Amino acid sequence: MFYHIKELQYNAKPSCPDPLYAKKLQELLGGQFGEISVMMQYLFQGFNGRADAKYRDLLLDIGTEEMAHVEMLATMIARLLDGAPWEDQQAAYSNNPAVAAIMGGMNPQHAIVSGLGAMPVDSVGNRWTAAYIGASGNLLADFRANLNAESQGRLQAVRLYELAVDPGVKDMLSFLIARDTAHQNQWKAAIAEIEAREGDIVVPTTFPRELEKQAVSYDLYNLSRGEASSKGRWAQGPAPDGRGVLKYISDPVPFGPKATLSPAPLYIHDTLPHPLPPNLV
Amino acid sequence: MFYHIKELQYNAKPSCPDPLYAKKLQELLGGQFGEISVMMQYLFQGFNGRADAKYRDLLLDIGTEEMAHVEMLATMIARLLDGAPWEDQQAAYSNNPAVAAIMGGMNPQHAIVSGLGAMPVDSVGNRWTAAYIGASGNLLADFRANLNAESQGRLQAVRLYELAVDPGVKDMLSFLIARDTAHQNQWKAAIAEIEAREGDIVVPTTFPRELEKQAVSYDLYNLSRGEASSKGRWAQGPAPDGRGVLKYISDPVPFGPKATLSPAPLYIHDTLPHPLPPNLV
Amino acid sequence: MFYHIKELQYNAKPSCPDPLYAKKLQELLGGQFGEISVMMQYLFQGFNGRADAKYRDLLLDIGTEEMAHVEMLATMIARLLDGAPWEDQQAAYSNNPAVAAIMGGMNPQHAIVSGLGAMPVDSVGNRWTAAYIGASGNLLADFRANLNAESQGRLQAVRLYELAVDPGVKDMLSFLIARDTAHQNQWKAAIAEIEAREGDIVVPTTFPRELEKQAVSYDLYNLSRGEASSKGRWAQGPAPDGRGVLKYISDPVPFGPKATLSPAPLYIHDTLPHPLPPNLV
Amino acid sequence: MFYHIKELQYNAKPSCPDPLYAKKLQELLGGQFGEISVMMQYLFQGFNGRADAKYRDLLLDIGTEEMAHVEMLATMIARLLDGAPWEDQQAAYSNNPAVAAIMGGMNPQHAIVSGLGAMPVDSVGNRWTAAYIGASGNLLADFRANLNAESQGRLQAVRLYELAVDPGVKDMLSFLIARDTAHQNQWKAAIAEIEAREGDIVVPTTFPRELEKQAVSYDLYNLSRGEASSKGRWAQGPAPDGRGVLKYISDPVPFGPKATLSPAPLYIHDTLPHPLPPNLV
Amino acid sequence: MFYHIKELQYNAKPSCPDPLYAKKLQELLGGQFGEISVMMQYLFQGFNGRADAKYRDLLLDIGTEEMAHVEMLATMIARLLDGAPWEDQQAAYSNNPAVAAIMGGMNPQHAIVSGLGAMPVDSVGNRWTAAYIGASGNLLADFRANLNAESQGRLQAVRLYELAVDPGVKDMLSFLIARDTAHQNQWKAAIAEIEAREGDIVVPTTFPRELEKQAVSYDLYNLSRGEASSKGRWAQGPAPDGRGVLKYISDPVPFGPKATLSPAPLYIHDTLPHPLPPNLV
Amino acid sequence: MFYHIKELQYNAKPSCPDPLYAKKLQELLGGQFGEISVMMQYLFQGFNGRADAKYRDLLLDIGTEEMAHVEMLATMIARLLDGAPWEDQQAAYSNNPAVAAIMGGMNPQHAIVSGLGAMPVDSVGNRWTAAYIGASGNLLADFRANLNAESQGRLQAVRLYELAVDPGVKDMLSFLIARDTAHQNQWKAAIAEIEAREGDIVVPTTFPRELEKQAVSYDLYNLSRGEASSKGRWAQGPAPDGRGVLKYISDPVPFGPKATLSPAPLYIHDTLPHPLPPNLV
Repeated sequence: MFYHIKELQYNAKPSCPDPLYAKKLQELLGGQFGEISVMMQYLFQGFNGRADAKYRDLLLDIGTEEMAHVEMLATMIARLLDGAPWEDQQAAYSNNPAVAAIMGGMNPQHAIVSGLGAMPVDSVGNRWTAAYIGASGNLLADFRANLNAESQGRLQAVRLYELAVDPGVKDMLSFLIARDTAHQNQWKAAIAEIEAREGDIVVPTTFPRELEKQAVSYDLYNLSRGEASSKGRWAQGPAPDGRGVLKYISDPVPFGPKATLSPAPLYIHDTLPHPLPPNLV
Repeated sequence: MFYHIKELQYNAKPSCPDPLYAKKLQELLGGQFGEISVMMQYLFQGFNGRADAKYRDLLLDIGTEEMAHVEMLATMIARLLDGAPWEDQQAAYSNNPAVAAIMGGMNPQHAIVSGLGAMPVDSVGNRWTAAYIGASGNLLADFRANLNAESQGRLQAVRLYELAVDPGVKDMLSFLIARDTAHQNQWKAAIAEIEAREGDIVVPTTFPRELEKQAVSYDLYNLSRGEASSKGRWAQGPAPDGRGVLKYISDPVPFGPKATLSPAPLYIHDTLPHPLPPNLV
Repeated sequence: MFYHIKELQYNAKPSCPDPLYAKKLQELLGGQFGEISVMMQYLFQGFNGRADAKYRDLLLDIGTEEMAHVEMLATMIARLLDGAPWEDQQAAYSNNPAVAAIMGGMNPQHAIVSGLGAMPVDSVGNRWTAAYIGASGNLLADFRANLNAESQGRLQAVRLYELAVDPGVKDMLSFLIARDTAHQNQWKAAIAEIEAREGDIVVPTTFPRELEKQAVSYDLYNLSRGEASSKGRWAQGPAPDGRGVLKYISDPVPFGPKATLSPAPLYIHDTLPHPLPPNLV
Repeated sequence: MFYHIKELQYNAKPSCPDPLYAKKLQELLGGQFGEISVMMQYLFQGFNGRADAKYRDLLLDIGTEEMAHVEMLATMIARLLDGAPWEDQQAAYSNNPAVAAIMGGMNPQHAIVSGLGAMPVDSVGNRWTAAYIGASGNLLADFRANLNAESQGRLQAVRLYELAVDPGVKDMLSFLIARDTAHQNQWKAAIAEIEAREGDIVVPTTFPRELEKQAVSYDLYNLSRGEASSKGRWAQGPAPDGRGVLKYISDPVPFGPKATLSPAPLYIHDTLPHPLPPNLV
Repeated sequence: MFYHIKELQYNAKPSCPDPLYAKKLQELLGGQFGEISVMMQYLFQGFNGRADAKYRDLLLDIGTEEMAHVEMLATMIARLLDGAPWEDQQAAYSNNPAVAAIMGGMNPQHAIVSGLGAMPVDSVGNRWTAAYIGASGNLLADFRANLNAESQGRLQAVRLYELAVDPGVKDMLSFLIARDTAHQNQWKAAIAEIEAREGDIVVPTTFPRELEKQAVSYDLYNLSRGEASSKGRWAQGPAPDGRGVLKYISDPVPFGPKATLSPAPLYIHDTLPHPLPPNLV
Repeated sequence: MFYHIKELQYNAKPSCPDPLYAKKLQELLGGQFGEISVMMQYLFQGFNGRADAKYRDLLLDIGTEEMAHVEMLATMIARLLDGAPWEDQQAAYSNNPAVAAIMGGMNPQHAIVSGLGAMPVDSVGNRWTAAYIGASGNLLADFRANLNAESQGRLQAVRLYELAVDPGVKDMLSFLIARDTAHQNQWKAAIAEIEAREGDIVVPTTFPRELEKQAVSYDLYNLSRGEASSKGRWAQGPAPDGRGVLKYISDPVPFGPKATLSPAPLYIHDTLPHPLPPNLV
């Protein structure tokens, strides 16, 4: 169960409105790696948590914080849309390039649909979708998903910082970027803890290795002609899982036969081969 | 540019048809972490590669292999749908539970839409969407995305292995699982190489730390009441990035003020506050 | 900013697992009118609130409660999936109709993707999408959206209650249904308050009526031949807005001319009319 | 069965082309609350109508009218795109702000994809999706959905009216806004009729109240700290349904226990708790 | 503008309910090539029609007919869902395979969401989306789209006919299949007329051929090793457009150089190559 | 199985960056009829191929070529985004219309999300979805889908050619347009071959004509009042399938009765008719 307080976790106040930047900032709110994504991903991982209580608690701690970030970004976006001098712009855009850029470039739904409010969409207007997130029940897999989400998210926040000029926007982003630093460190630590405890790095660690085709478990196939990829750590030396040796296969060949399919039964009305095979005549 | 040969990378032949399993196996083909996802993700990361040639080559090597996996899974699914005794089932399903389960449970589009062919969809029929994938231009972020994809993918392949009884299906899955082992090792190695080269683990490593609000860069906020999350490695000790000390904040409070927004201009037709503020009267 | 406590708002414990029902119950969690929808809709309306503080507070009160409902449903679904006797079912489904129904009918992603966890999807597996929700900045419009959401949501909860046999499931649903009763009453009261305050029922009440084509503001056009629709309150008597009289137009005709379009310029490569109009020759 | 005539229901002719406005106007055609949505929603509610013939007829009357609105908007958008001086703009946009705004801001698909035609998309290019609409079989619920759709739709039409300068566009919008006035009145009247007939306002009215947890059917939980929400009609006095008294709960607490989940069976390969519970060792 | 009459274009009455078949039949209503798709595609092509009036009229004739098919299918599906003995099934499904198949296999949203009504979804529950359709302004392209839609649609209707046992369902399908025969013939005739009038078969016929790289305009590249594809009409002889000769290139090679990209500017925070290029140091 | 070489099939190098054009060019990469669509459509049709080996081979030949086109377009887009003078633009956009157009009009995700890389999206940012494509198992249907895809695709490429000024972009487009010429010719030839072999043009040719309602197999219903559509080849003369005569029905009437539905059972909680029918009292 949740409680809300009216204070923001951190400041979310721009110096002045900027509807064009509001559109861009939507990426951090409703984009693939925005705050709605991490909030929903961590909460679902937490609600579904079947392992130790401490992992469940960690997920709900951070998931609950992300809700505060959703709130901060929504507030900032609404303020960036504040009092957009819309009607005047109409008149003005025939001779002012800056205004013309705004008229052409702002998200029209910020005016027509949300009435100067933030929306659960990304910077081009795609709605947030649960196709962005996951909760698998396997924490090593999921913490890697989380580390990835925080990496992509901080990268985007940094790019938006580079694009920003407003000190209020930069101030808020400096806070969110720092929190992403914290979360990358935390998921990294959690991953290390689980890898150590399970004694393997290959998810899921519980599948008996003898059931996989071990002959190909450490090969890199050179399928994009040219040998540049043979120069990396991934192509030689002991594998990170400590159970094999990485190998570069310069000229990979198929292990399987040609693929062919039988004709479909008549009542499927697929095209039939000519001549017709005996059983279908 | 690409070339195709007609041999499969590995066997993809079931012992007998099983349309219910075909539906489930679609998850590995067209699901969020299926082979279409990794193929498209690695190819786009490769095509967009602006850093060293060896990373670009690695991405195109593995991306090209994933195309072979798409082909194997499509072939296997088509064969699992082979000659489904459809009309007979119609008659039969009033008294045979196994047939009834198939009639109720198979993906009807396998008959009506694809004519006993594989589809670019997951195990419940959601179409594959590019919302599953990403290519950010930052390789540390993207290799983490790739490690996550291979972790989730191997987990799902293992679960499908547990669900399978057909030896042909198990044989193919044992190959794919082994390749996921290889790819997890390879991305792990590539990540380690980049972290070492860039001297940091926090993506992007190129953003000056003094620009972030460093006071909060290592805190864990206990926002889900109860102290279980204080017991993990993530809540204490030196941070994985080697630049700070992880800290558990038991009773976190807001740093920001209450959020309030100004009324919208009249021509937006939002609800106005009562009493009306002076500038809107 | 938000806080979480580990207690559920209400019980969410079934008497025994039922993966088929778990699939159906997803509708209340991640469906069009499920708890994620109302949570996100109310929170965004609240975060974007530019009118009186009490409306904003009301929205955040109820939005925060809906988060607790998301948590309860996720917990219930995970428990309905508890320890599904999967491998045994494999063996069993050739001769047990009930098990066959489960094997055919459960959501395969509950096993393959979420590892026996709840997902942000509906009862057929469509992911939750922000296309379900809205926040317009106009509270009369939005409270009507909310009343609709609670009406559809309670209807679905009631249907699921009728479908349920497990006393634990029924207990939880009886709580959620009661809360939907409360919320329907609350939005209804809020709507009445705003209608009274704004002195009109037509959203937005702030648009000058003389700017609309008032001649057609109260007509019902009989466009589906037959006069059955003339018998309702909507076809006669004073209009609910108190400003006009509802009228039934038995034989409606067009007010506009035939629609025709000019040919496209040549560089668009649309099909051109024959003979070519003079300006395009 | 349907018939079409070539006359438009009302004028749809702009004074001059304006591709930037054409993009915005798409919101009323293919947006969440655009004319395609109401057309499809009313037609499906009508086709599925199992109650009195007059409701079915009303739905098909208005649904059929909305098809005429789809036609009018498509025609208007095509005309706003008429003869866009594209090539000249190419040359011009380096020194004319107004042209630059158009080049940057128009929907490129209007040229590349539709060849200067209207599209079933909203103002940012999201395609129309049936996720926008509903038909539940319960008319009180559905008429509330319809009242909401007409409220959001009229609000958006009014905002687009404020944005318009072209007299032909304003003329068409004044007609559509008036029709939305009519439809809001009609759905409001229909709702009142059904509420009276069913003797309740809580959807569905047919569920026995004693089956819901009546102790919580009229409470408002103050979950967003601060008492502003206690000041409204929704927090006190007789409930609109006439069966209870609205109550404000200032300090709400959970009714349920802590949520915990059992570990998953081994063959699911979720992370297992440490130490392992006895039944999984 | 449109008018509706209450008679169906043709019978849509099953002999008895069959909720499992209702789910499958949704494919023809709300699937990729279902009746909603052709209705919307033809209407948009018609509304956007900038060429001769007769094409526009043809599109609106057939588009208006498709609306009648939407109505017929919705009616049939609702009737297939009629009076589903739901509660009894609950009791029954532990020992009746046929009932078990229905319980496991019917679309749960037909009960929970639509209240035994048809939905704008396909046979697995994906919502209809405007991503299925197109209107390009070029009639030769669009009539090919239409011929394709009628071909895929009739194929699916035939497969559903093969799956059907109910004589009422078969009767309705025999009508729809016949109409698809008519429409395939009509679009084929329209295509022939336009090809003749424009004197070419390559869309768009209005682009000067000398602007394309004519050296490769008739080649087939053998990129899937093996020469089977050299045996068809497409690999030799005069091209259908009468302007070239089809040619089989057995061993195709690239015409372009290796692809390489420059590093991104520093403020983008992509991974930079090592060693750093001079301009970025 | 596939192999990649590092050479591009053709040049993909612009003379200078142009982020606004990069956004538009995305339509050919990730749009409904872009290269990802044809690549995936042909590969799935090929992998699922159950008829003659030569058709399967043809599909895989062209599908493999389309992968090279995906690579070329991705490369071109990345180069058009090269070194976008982002920070300077920030400063500049207040007084330079051309820069203002770019700032307002470029796809913000090209900077924030992909780090100056191509994305699997269309020109307004919709992600590529498998809802665009199909593989039915019936080659006559599918080759028509392919001819349509190449027709729409070439049309869009030509429109983008008209929009382009950069000689490098025009050079690449001239190649892609020529390949579309080749593919239109090839699918046209393949269609003719199959039509001849199957002796019919109506898909599927294998359904016995006597099972369809032959009385309506050649009628055109004049449902959009006015006789313009009677003037075309589709309304008279022998049908293209050689089995009937096309006929124009000037005043079409319904063949079916009024549609009415029975009330739903009580436990569905639909609105019930008044008065209640006897069986529901």
